[in-house]
Amino acid sequence: MGLNDGILNQLAEQVIELPSWAFGNSGTRFKVFATPGTPRTVEEKLADAAKVNELTALAPKVALHIPWDKVDDYAALRTYAEDLGVSLGTINSNTFQDDIYKFGSLTHVDAAVRRKAIDHHYECIEIMNQTGSRDLKIWLADGTNYPGQGDIRGRQDRLADSLAEIYARISPEQRLVLEYKFFEPAFYHTDVPDWGTSYAQVAALGENAVVCLDTGHHAPGTNIEFIVAQLLRLGKLGSFDFNSRFYADDDLIVGAADPFQLFRIIYEVIRGGGLDPDAGVAFMLDQCHNVEDKVPGQIRSVLNVQEMTARALLVDTDALFAAQQAGDVLGANAIFMDAFYTDVRPDLATWRESRGLPADPLKAYAESGYQKTIETERVGGTQAGWGA
Amino acid sequence: MGLNDGILNQLAEQVIELPSWAFGNSGTRFKVFATPGTPRTVEEKLADAAKVNELTALAPKVALHIPWDKVDDYAALRTYAEDLGVSLGTINSNTFQDDIYKFGSLTHVDAAVRRKAIDHHYECIEIMNQTGSRDLKIWLADGTNYPGQGDIRGRQDRLADSLAEIYARISPEQRLVLEYKFFEPAFYHTDVPDWGTSYAQVAALGENAVVCLDTGHHAPGTNIEFIVAQLLRLGKLGSFDFNSRFYADDDLIVGAADPFQLFRIIYEVIRGGGLDPDAGVAFMLDQCHNVEDKVPGQIRSVLNVQEMTARALLVDTDALFAAQQAGDVLGANAIFMDAFYTDVRPDLATWRESRGLPADPLKAYAESGYQKTIETERVGGTQAGWGA
Amino acid sequence: MGLNDGILNQLAEQVIELPSWAFGNSGTRFKVFATPGTPRTVEEKLADAAKVNELTALAPKVALHIPWDKVDDYAALRTYAEDLGVSLGTINSNTFQDDIYKFGSLTHVDAAVRRKAIDHHYECIEIMNQTGSRDLKIWLADGTNYPGQGDIRGRQDRLADSLAEIYARISPEQRLVLEYKFFEPAFYHTDVPDWGTSYAQVAALGENAVVCLDTGHHAPGTNIEFIVAQLLRLGKLGSFDFNSRFYADDDLIVGAADPFQLFRIIYEVIRGGGLDPDAGVAFMLDQCHNVEDKVPGQIRSVLNVQEMTARALLVDTDALFAAQQAGDVLGANAIFMDAFYTDVRPDLATWRESRGLPADPLKAYAESGYQKTIETERVGGTQAGWGA
Amino acid sequence: MGLNDGILNQLAEQVIELPSWAFGNSGTRFKVFATPGTPRTVEEKLADAAKVNELTALAPKVALHIPWDKVDDYAALRTYAEDLGVSLGTINSNTFQDDIYKFGSLTHVDAAVRRKAIDHHYECIEIMNQTGSRDLKIWLADGTNYPGQGDIRGRQDRLADSLAEIYARISPEQRLVLEYKFFEPAFYHTDVPDWGTSYAQVAALGENAVVCLDTGHHAPGTNIEFIVAQLLRLGKLGSFDFNSRFYADDDLIVGAADPFQLFRIIYEVIRGGGLDPDAGVAFMLDQCHNVEDKVPGQIRSVLNVQEMTARALLVDTDALFAAQQAGDVLGANAIFMDAFYTDVRPDLATWRESRGLPADPLKAYAESGYQKTIETERVGGTQAGWGA
Repeated sequence: MGLNDGILNQLAEQVIELPSWAFGNSGTRFKVFATPGTPRTVEEKLADAAKVNELTALAPKVALHIPWDKVDDYAALRTYAEDLGVSLGTINSNTFQDDIYKFGSLTHVDAAVRRKAIDHHYECIEIMNQTGSRDLKIWLADGTNYPGQGDIRGRQDRLADSLAEIYARISPEQRLVLEYKFFEPAFYHTDVPDWGTSYAQVAALGENAVVCLDTGHHAPGTNIEFIVAQLLRLGKLGSFDFNSRFYADDDLIVGAADPFQLFRIIYEVIRGGGLDPDAGVAFMLDQCHNVEDKVPGQIRSVLNVQEMTARALLVDTDALFAAQQAGDVLGANAIFMDAFYTDVRPDLATWRESRGLPADPLKAYAESGYQKTIETERVGGTQAGWGA
Repeated sequence: MGLNDGILNQLAEQVIELPSWAFGNSGTRFKVFATPGTPRTVEEKLADAAKVNELTALAPKVALHIPWDKVDDYAALRTYAEDLGVSLGTINSNTFQDDIYKFGSLTHVDAAVRRKAIDHHYECIEIMNQTGSRDLKIWLADGTNYPGQGDIRGRQDRLADSLAEIYARISPEQRLVLEYKFFEPAFYHTDVPDWGTSYAQVAALGENAVVCLDTGHHAPGTNIEFIVAQLLRLGKLGSFDFNSRFYADDDLIVGAADPFQLFRIIYEVIRGGGLDPDAGVAFMLDQCHNVEDKVPGQIRSVLNVQEMTARALLVDTDALFAAQQAGDVLGANAIFMDAFYTDVRPDLATWRESRGLPADPLKAYAESGYQKTIETERVGGTQAGWGA
Repeated sequence: MGLNDGILNQLAEQVIELPSWAFGNSGTRFKVFATPGTPRTVEEKLADAAKVNELTALAPKVALHIPWDKVDDYAALRTYAEDLGVSLGTINSNTFQDDIYKFGSLTHVDAAVRRKAIDHHYECIEIMNQTGSRDLKIWLADGTNYPGQGDIRGRQDRLADSLAEIYARISPEQRLVLEYKFFEPAFYHTDVPDWGTSYAQVAALGENAVVCLDTGHHAPGTNIEFIVAQLLRLGKLGSFDFNSRFYADDDLIVGAADPFQLFRIIYEVIRGGGLDPDAGVAFMLDQCHNVEDKVPGQIRSVLNVQEMTARALLVDTDALFAAQQAGDVLGANAIFMDAFYTDVRPDLATWRESRGLPADPLKAYAESGYQKTIETERVGGTQAGWGA
Repeated sequence: MGLNDGILNQLAEQVIELPSWAFGNSGTRFKVFATPGTPRTVEEKLADAAKVNELTALAPKVALHIPWDKVDDYAALRTYAEDLGVSLGTINSNTFQDDIYKFGSLTHVDAAVRRKAIDHHYECIEIMNQTGSRDLKIWLADGTNYPGQGDIRGRQDRLADSLAEIYARISPEQRLVLEYKFFEPAFYHTDVPDWGTSYAQVAALGENAVVCLDTGHHAPGTNIEFIVAQLLRLGKLGSFDFNSRFYADDDLIVGAADPFQLFRIIYEVIRGGGLDPDAGVAFMLDQCHNVEDKVPGQIRSVLNVQEMTARALLVDTDALFAAQQAGDVLGANAIFMDAFYTDVRPDLATWRESRGLPADPLKAYAESGYQKTIETERVGGTQAGWGA
């Protein structure tokens, strides 16, 4: 079972969006370890992202986070990125690091705080207009830590009002993408905790409002591929935040914790038509390389997505549907697993070489000297991180 | 802080619906323990339910499960119940015990199986017409055990079609109530696994289609009161299946595992207007008394709901909203907890007596001799259970 | 990276023990679906197990469950098995289906119930003496459903006493293997819920008392391979009950839910010397084929274990230790994943053929006509199941 | 059911140890919110802790964290504390914030790193000698994020060696207390993830090595009171880190998330003799007041423990044991719940006043002006936090 031209053609169109913040330092509440070579500026982050794309041809887009990636001249930044061979992608807003957001942002009881949070999104939309970005992604840290602390119902109503104001400002070519998250940083209740809430909120807004599914934002035991299938069915799967996790929102490399889950997720993407560029599904990474090197961590990540997409495309869907129709449990499962267990890596390496790419991008990175260069050159200044 | 007249008036209107099957035997896949006195017929189940209502005035309705409670003459059964002081409530369908449902019912790949499952619901609606029941409750065991076994997306589409056929048959006074369940008896994927799916499905049907929230059907860590608040906000909370659980769908006595969670749930019911009889929320029990006596188990359950409702009504909402508005985390939480920690039992006992009810219904039951009577009289025949 | 002779030699020694009950009917509390061809007797179960072994050479042992597999003449049963090419393995006791065990067995407050449970184990030991079995495996359903129902501490002390009586009866060549389980059928507390409890109990007994690790008996998020490593380190890993699960104790086919987890578990077995026959680790299956065919379900299972063992043996441990020593996170992980992603199936097929086995045992089974034969011949009688 | 003298006498002996770090700022990886009045020095932390004790008479001990609470003169610090009416308690080591611990401390592959980590514990023991502390508490952040990253087995062996070196240094009056934690900050594997590991490690060390149970460090669904009962039975429950959580290690106020769980835990403490001062169980808090005021947060916490202890002492154990003996599930549970639902707060308020304490310590704190004073006086300098 090899990768035929039909599969390779689909793989050739695959676009994975890198998060600028993956190149910065990150960690836990206990400690953020710094690493040599970490970017100090958004331009350096873009350079690292471009390196990933150069070696893989998989990552031509970079998502920005505002205010972490604020610059004076976004048109210049756009040109800078394009000169590196990448484009600016999703704009991510941030309403969780200003002191006034301690008790919420778009859901806050105080209209002045909500105003400030809405205005921040207006600013993001303005940036999108300059960067040419399609998506405004909203992840909220809003929630409470103690029962009684907040009024769950009132907060949901205020959220709806705030989102409506933001949605009214986006252009017909732009989208509002609402992310949900099970828990953290709020511990008792989260204002957008599940896909149902995100769906109900964006459905009330209109056609250009969609859901972002972060693969690490679910309760244990949740069948994530079911949600993928459902959101595609409802026409509301806007984007993925890919990463993996063993227990909480670990933000590990996609596919690292449960490769078979990633396979099942991508299979449902394909089954629901989500791999078609017209479907508008953005495939983003959202990861933290707390203890591993960042650039190769991103290379590993995009390769994992590519390899798993190749495996999922290998599923013999005709045979599978026939087995499903016949109630042949073991037969259907065997067809499914056969694709998963097929080693697609040699074929992908050959294909990469045929396109002028390194057969082994990680080896190519190690041999490129890039890591040593950035470690040498990026001295002084403040390394980028979540607070910067 | 005592129970004032306003609170007692609200409590006086409280109606909890008992499940007929709670009086039959139940257990686990490992063993179903039989108990003396267990009903052999639906009439005996109704008698037991009526006893619960006689001692508590809380449970004037009994939900039936078809085919477990099938009889030849539902009009006669209705009269029988009314003579005992109770009425027939929700009709629960069953598409999980016939061999042809091994691979699904409303979602099955085979149109003939779907037909049979839809027809079963038509039969249930016909029974509702005779029993005067308002609600058709649908819980599906549909799902798969192995990845690849079924087509998640196709099953969801077929579910929508099947539900539409059923919905078309109910009268304007009736409701279709769709329950969701995280897992079991299917282990890999469940066709209605979460409130979002149930909501999306019933929203597509129309106004008389609503969601049933079983408190034991969620992933660990799920904030259930949030879902209560959200469904009330969306106008789609149709009914509760009350029970409690430590890990899976344990179906223990409501309030037994996490009393504070029950408090928070009922608080959100009140907050969202769900206690108002006009809201149409049915408060049902759905429990299994695997190792404890069944009639007193049900008495304990309705008392738990009543006591917790009393506590939730004690919350000083003006003070709470003021503390929430002020960002006073500890103050708001203290107001909330103060109500929870108040011992409402003495006031409720006094109030019961003032209404001609026993102060301690469990003691009254023990002294009534009812248990001894049913143990003596109900000899021979086949005790009711899930298979009967 | 192919399977060299060293690896194949280790694989050639692999012994997987089949549970007799996997060939009988099983299900959930909602429904047990019957299937044509299901054995009616222990002899028919042994025939099915022998078929699995004939096609795979992986499963020369069959574990029995008492009383499900009780016969009058165990010496005859032993001969019967040996004539089929298999031997009788672990004896599993059952103290969860008699009415007197409703509130516990080895932990029961009533000495008479404990006596009966201990005597049952004496009977099992007597059977072991006749079957030549080494291991007495004890899984207890003991526990409680409600807080306060039982005295956790007292039950633990009584458990210790009961186990000591049983342990005193086994011979120096025999072992007492104590299984732990997180939950089910008890919902509030389980008397042997975790490896720590099983370890503390068997450590108090002596050298011939060890722990059974059922891969489905843990809380979500538990790192099972860590427990494998720890029990091997402590010299107390007696046996595995292999299966897989998505949420609870689903008893699905081993490797079906999370293949990578199985890889990690087997890697730690190898790392800790557990694959060495002298280590005394029994590799058993403990599965329920609720909706899939049973004989091919078992074939699939033993192949999954074999294939994953082959992958785990492929790990380049020298390179891995070097990368671990160097703090090379991505490098170490890559070495680990490289083995996992290698497709060992072609090599294994070739190797099977070289040993006179079918390249594809499942295909060989389908073509053998065995399934049709048992469906035709096994008519009438009572199909085996958990209650039989 | 009121609090009799026997109960009040037991409550009078209750000692809860406050963590110095609870008075500093804390937060999540997303944001640490600062609050006015936060201590800048260990002396200011001690002053805040002393205020809690002054108003409650419950918290005469303060645990220190090294290096966060390092001073030049511990004898002076001890005197300073004693002048405030409190004593210095448990010394907590920290091997997770130095860059060299990125890949572990006591388990590190590099002997030089282990040496540094062991030496840090020697330093802690030296501090204990000066502060008069009994307990050295070790919580390790050691673990890995990716499968293959570390050698689980080797790390466990090195842990044993390192602990043995540390244990050899403590005096006969001192104890080594080893904490376990399910996950975080390591995501794939934790070197001391469960009580079984902690127990196995301390059992190998000797009598003065015991286990610390942090109530927030378990997988979902874990029965924590079972572990309490088991560790007391094994003579190895050294201390509690009290807090509460909804999902992960949320470090919320003890009793805030699941009051009934706290009740069950304290009941097992009493049942196992752990409330007896001779049992040597240290009752510490380990909490983070991320969004609520810190001093009243600690007052709320110690009151929660006191109130729940009072409830647990109210359990009619004679009646409970009789019901358990009789297999009276509902009766036993009712006795248990009766104590939980009893409102002990009025009796405790009266008792407090009789001892010259404020009836309502939180109200007394609010009226004391202390908060305003520290907000006014503690200006400038660097507020204490986890990094300081």
